[in-house]
Amino acid sequence: MSDAISPLAPASFPELPPVAGVQLAAHAAGLRYQGRADLMLAVVDEGTTVAGTLTKSLCPSAPVDWCRTLLPSGTGRALVVNSGNANAFTGRAGDTTAEMTANTIASALGFEPNEIYLASTGVIGETLPEEALAAGLTELATGLAPSNAEGWQGAANAIRTTDTFAKGASATAGEFTVVGFAKGSGMIAPDMATMLSFVFTDASLTQEVAQSLITNAVEHSYNRITVDSDTSTSDTVLLFATGAAPGDPITSANDPRYTELETALYDVNLDLAHQIVRDGEGATKFVEVQVSGADSNEAAKIVALSIANSPLVKTAVAASDANWGRIVMAIGKAGQRADRDKVAIWIGDEQVADAGIQLDGYSEERATEHMQGDHVLLKTDLGIGDGAATVWTCDLTHGYIEINAGYRT
Amino acid sequence: MSDAISPLAPASFPELPPVAGVQLAAHAAGLRYQGRADLMLAVVDEGTTVAGTLTKSLCPSAPVDWCRTLLPSGTGRALVVNSGNANAFTGRAGDTTAEMTANTIASALGFEPNEIYLASTGVIGETLPEEALAAGLTELATGLAPSNAEGWQGAANAIRTTDTFAKGASATAGEFTVVGFAKGSGMIAPDMATMLSFVFTDASLTQEVAQSLITNAVEHSYNRITVDSDTSTSDTVLLFATGAAPGDPITSANDPRYTELETALYDVNLDLAHQIVRDGEGATKFVEVQVSGADSNEAAKIVALSIANSPLVKTAVAASDANWGRIVMAIGKAGQRADRDKVAIWIGDEQVADAGIQLDGYSEERATEHMQGDHVLLKTDLGIGDGAATVWTCDLTHGYIEINAGYRT
Repeated sequence: MSDAISPLAPASFPELPPVAGVQLAAHAAGLRYQGRADLMLAVVDEGTTVAGTLTKSLCPSAPVDWCRTLLPSGTGRALVVNSGNANAFTGRAGDTTAEMTANTIASALGFEPNEIYLASTGVIGETLPEEALAAGLTELATGLAPSNAEGWQGAANAIRTTDTFAKGASATAGEFTVVGFAKGSGMIAPDMATMLSFVFTDASLTQEVAQSLITNAVEHSYNRITVDSDTSTSDTVLLFATGAAPGDPITSANDPRYTELETALYDVNLDLAHQIVRDGEGATKFVEVQVSGADSNEAAKIVALSIANSPLVKTAVAASDANWGRIVMAIGKAGQRADRDKVAIWIGDEQVADAGIQLDGYSEERATEHMQGDHVLLKTDLGIGDGAATVWTCDLTHGYIEINAGYRT
Repeated sequence: MSDAISPLAPASFPELPPVAGVQLAAHAAGLRYQGRADLMLAVVDEGTTVAGTLTKSLCPSAPVDWCRTLLPSGTGRALVVNSGNANAFTGRAGDTTAEMTANTIASALGFEPNEIYLASTGVIGETLPEEALAAGLTELATGLAPSNAEGWQGAANAIRTTDTFAKGASATAGEFTVVGFAKGSGMIAPDMATMLSFVFTDASLTQEVAQSLITNAVEHSYNRITVDSDTSTSDTVLLFATGAAPGDPITSANDPRYTELETALYDVNLDLAHQIVRDGEGATKFVEVQVSGADSNEAAKIVALSIANSPLVKTAVAASDANWGRIVMAIGKAGQRADRDKVAIWIGDEQVADAGIQLDGYSEERATEHMQGDHVLLKTDLGIGDGAATVWTCDLTHGYIEINAGYRT
């Protein structure tokens, strides 16, 4: 594995503000990686509302199963994440490890085990080294400090696997602060099989409001990115709303603060989702796929993902090849209603095709020029309805093969 | 584009026997390629039954649309195929080209235009050069000769695009002969977007019998291979049954000759399908994915294709990395019922996992050794039912990127 940072990485990790009611710790437990933190803990104030979404994989990791049983309570006190080992496909032993993790942190901090959320990211099919993990957890619990820029960066670093940079984002919503951090080198990273994202706010939210806010944010951010079409056993997004900021709880979508918070959560999660694409394995270009004129928004999303997941489209982008026939192919295979003779296609601002045929004035030179940049826009109008959607992906390069044909060794 | 032949190619093109009632011609019309045949014609005896399957793409090529209107007749006299240009996404002009092609051959040979089946394979979105095509078609019609080994090889060569070798196969069914040829470097080839296969037999079949035979054969051959998960605008499989062999027509599946012919068609089409995988872009390994113990055969096929289409599984195969966690991931994302704690996995003969956890005696060394060969077997038993399916694919290598990031230039 090379130490090179993605060419699409942001210049630096953002300066993330404190979120009242959140304490953080990170620790190098040596679970797999040497010389870097691989374990993090977030502790949230009593009364914190927790909501989230988990992978739809039918072979989920033990921590995903664990979180699935906790989420209906809508509350919790802590989050523990390790990197290097996904604790997935580890059978009964994996469940035992999850229980031990929750028990250790709970007894160290005086919580109940069912108040401790868990996530693991890394290799599938290997059991975690129990002793090193237990020792690390005990250390971790002694290192808590109120959340601040340094703490957020430390936490974001501790959950990295093949990520070439740590991913964080923040926004404010009126008087509230929203901070999130994430890991992932694609919808799935190699072996890691994981996209994790954790978002914290000091707003006070009911469980229903928190779940609605995070579900919407996920649908318009993580669910609209793809690196390689592979879906993870461990995908986890959790929102912790501590309620430590002043003000009454937000109990419905009619509260004007709901809309502000919705925007802030959308901004933070979309920023993190884009950072994941920018760290897509082997990525050299950030690709935006816009589809309009579809039967419905859902149909537009399916067509956009068909384009974004096509290895032929992605290799064409890598080569700055304005090979729009591959976009036609991807529209055709998406299984959504389309009328070939109504399709229009743009590469950047350059219109390529209209009414199902190449435009007379189309300049392949201008299209190619656009594709040589590192932000490529592929736009399609199906011409049959009002449905629209945008998704994001990266190009498919030799780097992807390089990383994935050699990761474990 | 390199001239290298796939390392998985057969030693030579097979010696294909004549099929009574079939005449062949090939011609170098210079439509795109120079110095090689790019146009072929097959003429079949009066009374020939025609059946087939066409791409499910919603942006199909003009020849696919043309064939779709002809197939309900169940009969025909000729097949014309060009390579280098798919005549797809070419609007009204594409339809005009298709009509001109059928008209030219029909009037040269005294047939009706609606007796002429068409297929095109090559670049999408460009109109065919009408004049060169018309001239080529006229030449083509003068070069017919009864089908023989040389003729079949010439026809198979004329339909190649990025194929590194011509693909043919034959079988006998009692007194009947079955010969087929095909092109394709994957379910989709770059730009080409095409898997074409044409099968001829001297058996006499009713339309219903012919359609049932070819539909079954396609379902168990072409529909079970994948190179890159991209589905073509031009996929076409046609069966021509000339009835020139002695004997009464086969009118039902109860005829004992039906079963013989079913086996022969299965053999020929599976052989051609495997040859397409062996010519998969950048392929260095032929991969067989077996799934058993699923809810149904259909569920098993979906899980097997999820494994075979996963870029992470395919890059692991390329690297001879016994990274079975990626197989778990692909099972989990397939959307079919699975119980993590019942899954068993084999790499070759080496059992990796049982009951959802790595087997104690598992030897990664032996698994790796198997993966270093050029025929890799990945076997999974879901442990919940009787459904089973096998699909075939190839590995994902730098070669795929090489070919697809540079094809048009």
